[in-house]
Amino acid sequence: MGRVSDSGRNGLFGASFSRSAVGVSDTDWLQAMLDTEAALARAVERAGLVAPGSGAAVTAAASADRFDIDELGRAAVLAGNPVPPLVRALSALLPAGRREAVHPGASSQDIIDTAVMLLARRAIGVIESDLATAARHAARLARENTATVLAGRTLLQQAVPVTFGLVAAGWLTGIDESRRDLHRTKTRLAVQFGGAAGTLAALGSAGPEVAALLADELGLAEPVLPWHTDRLRIVQLAAAVAGVSAALSKIARDVTLLAQTEVAEVSEGADDPRQGGSSAMPHKRNPVVAILVLGCTRRVPGLLATLTAAAEQEHQRAAGAWHAEWETLSELLRLTGSAASWSAALLAGLRVDADRMRANLDASGGLPMAEHVAAELAPALGRLAAHDLVAAAAARATAAGSTLQAELLADAEAAAALRAAGITERELAAAVDPTAYLGASAAFTQRALAAHDELRNEEGDDPGER
Amino acid sequence: MGRVSDSGRNGLFGASFSRSAVGVSDTDWLQAMLDTEAALARAVERAGLVAPGSGAAVTAAASADRFDIDELGRAAVLAGNPVPPLVRALSALLPAGRREAVHPGASSQDIIDTAVMLLARRAIGVIESDLATAARHAARLARENTATVLAGRTLLQQAVPVTFGLVAAGWLTGIDESRRDLHRTKTRLAVQFGGAAGTLAALGSAGPEVAALLADELGLAEPVLPWHTDRLRIVQLAAAVAGVSAALSKIARDVTLLAQTEVAEVSEGADDPRQGGSSAMPHKRNPVVAILVLGCTRRVPGLLATLTAAAEQEHQRAAGAWHAEWETLSELLRLTGSAASWSAALLAGLRVDADRMRANLDASGGLPMAEHVAAELAPALGRLAAHDLVAAAAARATAAGSTLQAELLADAEAAAALRAAGITERELAAAVDPTAYLGASAAFTQRALAAHDELRNEEGDDPGER
Amino acid sequence: MGRVSDSGRNGLFGASFSRSAVGVSDTDWLQAMLDTEAALARAVERAGLVAPGSGAAVTAAASADRFDIDELGRAAVLAGNPVPPLVRALSALLPAGRREAVHPGASSQDIIDTAVMLLARRAIGVIESDLATAARHAARLARENTATVLAGRTLLQQAVPVTFGLVAAGWLTGIDESRRDLHRTKTRLAVQFGGAAGTLAALGSAGPEVAALLADELGLAEPVLPWHTDRLRIVQLAAAVAGVSAALSKIARDVTLLAQTEVAEVSEGADDPRQGGSSAMPHKRNPVVAILVLGCTRRVPGLLATLTAAAEQEHQRAAGAWHAEWETLSELLRLTGSAASWSAALLAGLRVDADRMRANLDASGGLPMAEHVAAELAPALGRLAAHDLVAAAAARATAAGSTLQAELLADAEAAAALRAAGITERELAAAVDPTAYLGASAAFTQRALAAHDELRNEEGDDPGER
Amino acid sequence: MGRVSDSGRNGLFGASFSRSAVGVSDTDWLQAMLDTEAALARAVERAGLVAPGSGAAVTAAASADRFDIDELGRAAVLAGNPVPPLVRALSALLPAGRREAVHPGASSQDIIDTAVMLLARRAIGVIESDLATAARHAARLARENTATVLAGRTLLQQAVPVTFGLVAAGWLTGIDESRRDLHRTKTRLAVQFGGAAGTLAALGSAGPEVAALLADELGLAEPVLPWHTDRLRIVQLAAAVAGVSAALSKIARDVTLLAQTEVAEVSEGADDPRQGGSSAMPHKRNPVVAILVLGCTRRVPGLLATLTAAAEQEHQRAAGAWHAEWETLSELLRLTGSAASWSAALLAGLRVDADRMRANLDASGGLPMAEHVAAELAPALGRLAAHDLVAAAAARATAAGSTLQAELLADAEAAAALRAAGITERELAAAVDPTAYLGASAAFTQRALAAHDELRNEEGDDPGER
Repeated sequence: MGRVSDSGRNGLFGASFSRSAVGVSDTDWLQAMLDTEAALARAVERAGLVAPGSGAAVTAAASADRFDIDELGRAAVLAGNPVPPLVRALSALLPAGRREAVHPGASSQDIIDTAVMLLARRAIGVIESDLATAARHAARLARENTATVLAGRTLLQQAVPVTFGLVAAGWLTGIDESRRDLHRTKTRLAVQFGGAAGTLAALGSAGPEVAALLADELGLAEPVLPWHTDRLRIVQLAAAVAGVSAALSKIARDVTLLAQTEVAEVSEGADDPRQGGSSAMPHKRNPVVAILVLGCTRRVPGLLATLTAAAEQEHQRAAGAWHAEWETLSELLRLTGSAASWSAALLAGLRVDADRMRANLDASGGLPMAEHVAAELAPALGRLAAHDLVAAAAARATAAGSTLQAELLADAEAAAALRAAGITERELAAAVDPTAYLGASAAFTQRALAAHDELRNEEGDDPGER
Repeated sequence: MGRVSDSGRNGLFGASFSRSAVGVSDTDWLQAMLDTEAALARAVERAGLVAPGSGAAVTAAASADRFDIDELGRAAVLAGNPVPPLVRALSALLPAGRREAVHPGASSQDIIDTAVMLLARRAIGVIESDLATAARHAARLARENTATVLAGRTLLQQAVPVTFGLVAAGWLTGIDESRRDLHRTKTRLAVQFGGAAGTLAALGSAGPEVAALLADELGLAEPVLPWHTDRLRIVQLAAAVAGVSAALSKIARDVTLLAQTEVAEVSEGADDPRQGGSSAMPHKRNPVVAILVLGCTRRVPGLLATLTAAAEQEHQRAAGAWHAEWETLSELLRLTGSAASWSAALLAGLRVDADRMRANLDASGGLPMAEHVAAELAPALGRLAAHDLVAAAAARATAAGSTLQAELLADAEAAAALRAAGITERELAAAVDPTAYLGASAAFTQRALAAHDELRNEEGDDPGER
Repeated sequence: MGRVSDSGRNGLFGASFSRSAVGVSDTDWLQAMLDTEAALARAVERAGLVAPGSGAAVTAAASADRFDIDELGRAAVLAGNPVPPLVRALSALLPAGRREAVHPGASSQDIIDTAVMLLARRAIGVIESDLATAARHAARLARENTATVLAGRTLLQQAVPVTFGLVAAGWLTGIDESRRDLHRTKTRLAVQFGGAAGTLAALGSAGPEVAALLADELGLAEPVLPWHTDRLRIVQLAAAVAGVSAALSKIARDVTLLAQTEVAEVSEGADDPRQGGSSAMPHKRNPVVAILVLGCTRRVPGLLATLTAAAEQEHQRAAGAWHAEWETLSELLRLTGSAASWSAALLAGLRVDADRMRANLDASGGLPMAEHVAAELAPALGRLAAHDLVAAAAARATAAGSTLQAELLADAEAAAALRAAGITERELAAAVDPTAYLGASAAFTQRALAAHDELRNEEGDDPGER
Repeated sequence: MGRVSDSGRNGLFGASFSRSAVGVSDTDWLQAMLDTEAALARAVERAGLVAPGSGAAVTAAASADRFDIDELGRAAVLAGNPVPPLVRALSALLPAGRREAVHPGASSQDIIDTAVMLLARRAIGVIESDLATAARHAARLARENTATVLAGRTLLQQAVPVTFGLVAAGWLTGIDESRRDLHRTKTRLAVQFGGAAGTLAALGSAGPEVAALLADELGLAEPVLPWHTDRLRIVQLAAAVAGVSAALSKIARDVTLLAQTEVAEVSEGADDPRQGGSSAMPHKRNPVVAILVLGCTRRVPGLLATLTAAAEQEHQRAAGAWHAEWETLSELLRLTGSAASWSAALLAGLRVDADRMRANLDASGGLPMAEHVAAELAPALGRLAAHDLVAAAAARATAAGSTLQAELLADAEAAAALRAAGITERELAAAVDPTAYLGASAAFTQRALAAHDELRNEEGDDPGER
């Protein structure tokens, strides 16, 4: 059922912002609506409401390439949605005896909402697949860099040392937890089938049976009720997708910061040597993949707000709010799909410069170890006095461009404090060694990798098809 | 642990938009931070890192009423958050030998993020409790009105008949599914404990153990990793809360529409006869409770967008995005809490005018039964011809202010069609009887009630404490 | 310069949400970029920096139909934007001696941002034209209905009488004030020309002169500075467009409410008898045009939020935020353009049922006149007592389905009060006559029409070309 | 009229996010409503509708400290807004003969909307004043640093040299253009006075006259029509405020990036040595002021979206959308006010490290001069070949940690090209000198300063009182 989408990578911005084949093109929409009509025809046949063979006949006719999308679009404005002309066109493809199997008991909203569920299911599969790739590479980076020390940075200032393994583990956890949530959303994807106002009255007493058969045909859940104006399902879907986008935005932001000329701790790998180049500036190597991720993710919060606001829907079918969902949801899936695809490429190709990481840390003259030194002094001096003494030395080191260690040794008061604390020069040197102050970095990294392995086991072979 | 919040119902808009005691006042924030510090002190004592009794001493001191909130707030700007002055003030309340149990290994973010989890847990409990009440009343309305017929309305036009039981069942399902999701979010509420940059280096190798003990002390989950800049947890919490708001917004919108002067099918009950009154217009009975719900829910999508956008956080602590979360999350909980509380009152007091529902339907001259009549004619005339014939009669009925039935009988062509279809005048009268065209209304209503009963069984006695 | 856009009305949703030719298709984008490159070539020729004839040669080559949009889009990902491949392709169309006139001194952002200004200018023109039509019809409705009485409705309840002229005058004022603001925005549309980082260093000292000539060539303003990361211009443009959307959303919301089956005071005119129909329900006449307006306008606030958030741009060119603007701005213009076009059609065709307006008001048994009656009684009884007495009568009238007048006359206390106030039965009848309680309705309507005439005089003949 | 607000800097987050006295506390709201009622009393007295002296009597009573805010807030829920209990309480403070001057002809919305205009006017004044300070310091930084060279950075990579004067000039222009727009918004602030449904019927034919007098009393504009459900005024106000926030967010983002440990080109000045410190890390000097700016500005786009969405208001008074505006607008003003106040402090204290700026540029081995070198070679080699040759040398320089100059001289092909182009070693050295490649930096900076002087001349002495 359904056809693989043309990639959607066309047009001036397509390769940038529509990178993955999430399948939300007009053709995809049309086919999803036709798939719904076809499944409905088979369902009513199974329920004995139409002649045997009707389902197969409608299914055979329900191929997007037999319809004129522009014509359907033009006619859509009469009813405010494309289903009425679609029903007419689909019926016209059938012999008279089969037409009663087209659209029986259904409303336009039944067809569109169910189609949205089908589109969402496929898009989630595509996104999950790219996220699985991204996660695999994040896990590799975490494993490979458990001993790669760099400056942890808080509020954009060097803080204390961390490992790049832990950084990558954080990215991994973000990806894995967001895709776990996205995957869970799939179980909420439910058939919409309520007829004109949610009673299925046109089917007499057969409504619930047909709804169940339709859900079975499409492999979608059967909801407690038709959900024409209960849009929680859409909000939850959108929120899970936005969660993925949020996790990816953090990674891309980190990469752009770590790739800054003055930091230069990571760079984007490139198959094409022109990648990241500039027409005017021959030296440029811009982190263009991370930038394209951000170009997608920055647009997601506004779309999520639109869909959440649109959940205030009137009576049995909304006048406008429902209509505002269609393209918005497409955009949300398209942009997040693109961000996921770019992120997979980003992490697959990321180059880590461990030497530069260490050099940047060392260039700070041991300041990121100030917490450690103060902790060593605290038992003897008290925490506050130790803090103040180290802070003063740190300020002198910054001003003089020297090191924390040197300033502590050069200052009489500090030297006395070190002696009072029983800290030798050698112990001080050890105290400012970042490799000895990594705390639970390795343990946490292992935990993230273990959680990742667990998720991969759950997934089995195909992350998009769990 | 923690104290019950003052209700927050003070001030010019407090009773309107801060109706429920979700507990996000400054005092609540402060106490939650103190509860975190106290739990941390107990955790490090259990880990053997500080002297026995330290945990109890810190816990005893950690009472919000012993602190000057304004002073903490003023000092907060030096570090960009209130934890450093809080740590200092808390330490000052303790004897020297207990001070090492204050804030060991922790960052400001550990304290604030964990406090947010505590605030969220309590707020969710309060919201769940109000939602349980709202759901109970929605269920009652559904049960009581399984035979109450009214016009289903799509695109703000009368469509086909539905029952008010089914309408209330839809509200019920929205509430129940959103609170189920909110409840699930609770299991994601996890302690934050990573120290300066997520390595817990200041605790040497004891970090993970202390983190586990802290989680145990607070009854929060232990995350895979410290989540300083992995904000998916916040996005998911916000999304679940926004889902509740979305479900409630739909109900309130329906009530305002059903209560319109020209519709008048429901009205708000009022303990106070002045409720819904106007100072200028003596006759006014505004649906003020539903309006206050909407006054809350309309503000939620923007807040959700802010929190989702804020998830793009740099390195190991964000410069600004994290700070933007605090008040935004408070607002989100406060407004949704208020909407839940008002919604409980709304549904508890809602008055249903079944006679008016029927009268409004009857006033449409049988037009909402046009689908039914066309379906009856279809076997004989073909679907399209039947549709057109009934549409023409409907148009004449609208123009003349008569009824569909009358116009069909009066028109020669239509009368011939009825005869051809073997439909007698009596059968036509039956075909335009709305009570005979309710489809699965009762069955669907039962399904919603059964799902509700199942959720209540899961909950046991206290929905806020599941 | 530039070519008229293909209408963008294609595809499944095109006629619905891309109704007007605002010109934001890929071809439009490409042509706008080419127009910028061509103008730059002419500018540098005028500045004497390239050989005579270069400008004309580049201009001749700069035609979108000579370029492969998909190919440009694919190559765009290398630099993160389509300008580098465009420059290459444009150069390839020129003889060697002309190529130095392509892109001299410019950055990709110069080309894209200036192109956005050109796109915005044309889109504003198209939107202004549709708004002028909409305003003209709103003005006509205001003029035609100065004596058409209907219930004013506050909080969705009948309040006091108003005229439909005043309602339409309110719509008119919203349209006129929003398009006045949109028009003003045009003067802010400014050329972007700063080179690699805003210094135009590649042009030596000629930079500002070339920038001025470029502005002159394109008819755009010359900004104080290159505005690469000063995005206020974009925020203001987006806000003005969103203001238009906001004004139109109010009108469409009113129409959907006034067209409700139970209200039926307005309906949408339709050239096509199928408009507003339903495939299933033969009687349906949905206000589909207003619904499509709302389907557009509901999506605007989220897009505005995205553009406003994107204004936080780093250093001399943003990494992601800039890229997030492009499609978002297109969407904003496309949706608002569509809403404007639909609104013009809506107001042109709107049918007003003055009889039904009066009937709905009368059906309320004089309750909307309660304020008036209370005011008449106030001098004798005091305001509060008068209010309470009338409120009690209003409550009885609602309960009994009678009228305010009848209840006042039937009640002994009320009758005494009327006598005390010297109000005869005839005067009471006058006091509940809505046509005598319209206050400044006519005066206000005249004011709105006068303001409209003033704006039209400012505009002259062509609202899109002021 | 009105009283100066208590600063609003109280509470746990007050000093952080409510730094400036924009005046949106509950007391401010109450006083603004009372100021409106008092002005209305004076207006009706001037119109001869109430006894002489009534206006003064109401004005005397209309002092916020005579009212119980909590009590008003509790009673507000009966009508959905605090005006009805306020009117009652205000009347109770007056002798019987003066009470008819309280609230004559007015609706609750008239009072609240007009109060909002008064609050906005004052808040704009406060914000303008802080922006004027911020602009003055940005101008000073621009003037002082016209010759301070640093790396321009695009996409977070070093691009070509710029001056810090030009950077500050960009900040200045952002501030000045946003405050110019904010100032213009003031002229749109208009009295709201339409009575129950916009007709002022309760005042007979005197409505428009009273409206004009009320506008005169309050110094607000008189609108074409009562704007109860025409919310363009609110959207425009919100957009102008959001524009200010957007301009400030860019500056703060730049400061956090320039202050990074690895960049260290600017730092925040601090009166208090503890500013920017960390409780755990003694060496930390976080750019806390910039961070607090971002903590405010990040919340603005969501609030703007809420207000824009809320403009879809029904009939003559909205059911919910209007109510959603109140606190949202307060938040918007409070946060932007705080951001403006912090920004003034940020720019006043900003420390510029010109040596480090130059050092960071030099550390890039001349790569930011690659554009210049390529331009010098282009006439001889052709643009593309020159680009490729320099790009190759740049790549070697990056790999080897050497300089562009060295790599060009060391490579036989490059050396030949230099000779072919007639570029001597000395000329090459000049070509990689950043001080010789600043283009229009100085000229643009002067333009920004000139535009600033012009704005200051317009302002006269008091920017908040223009």
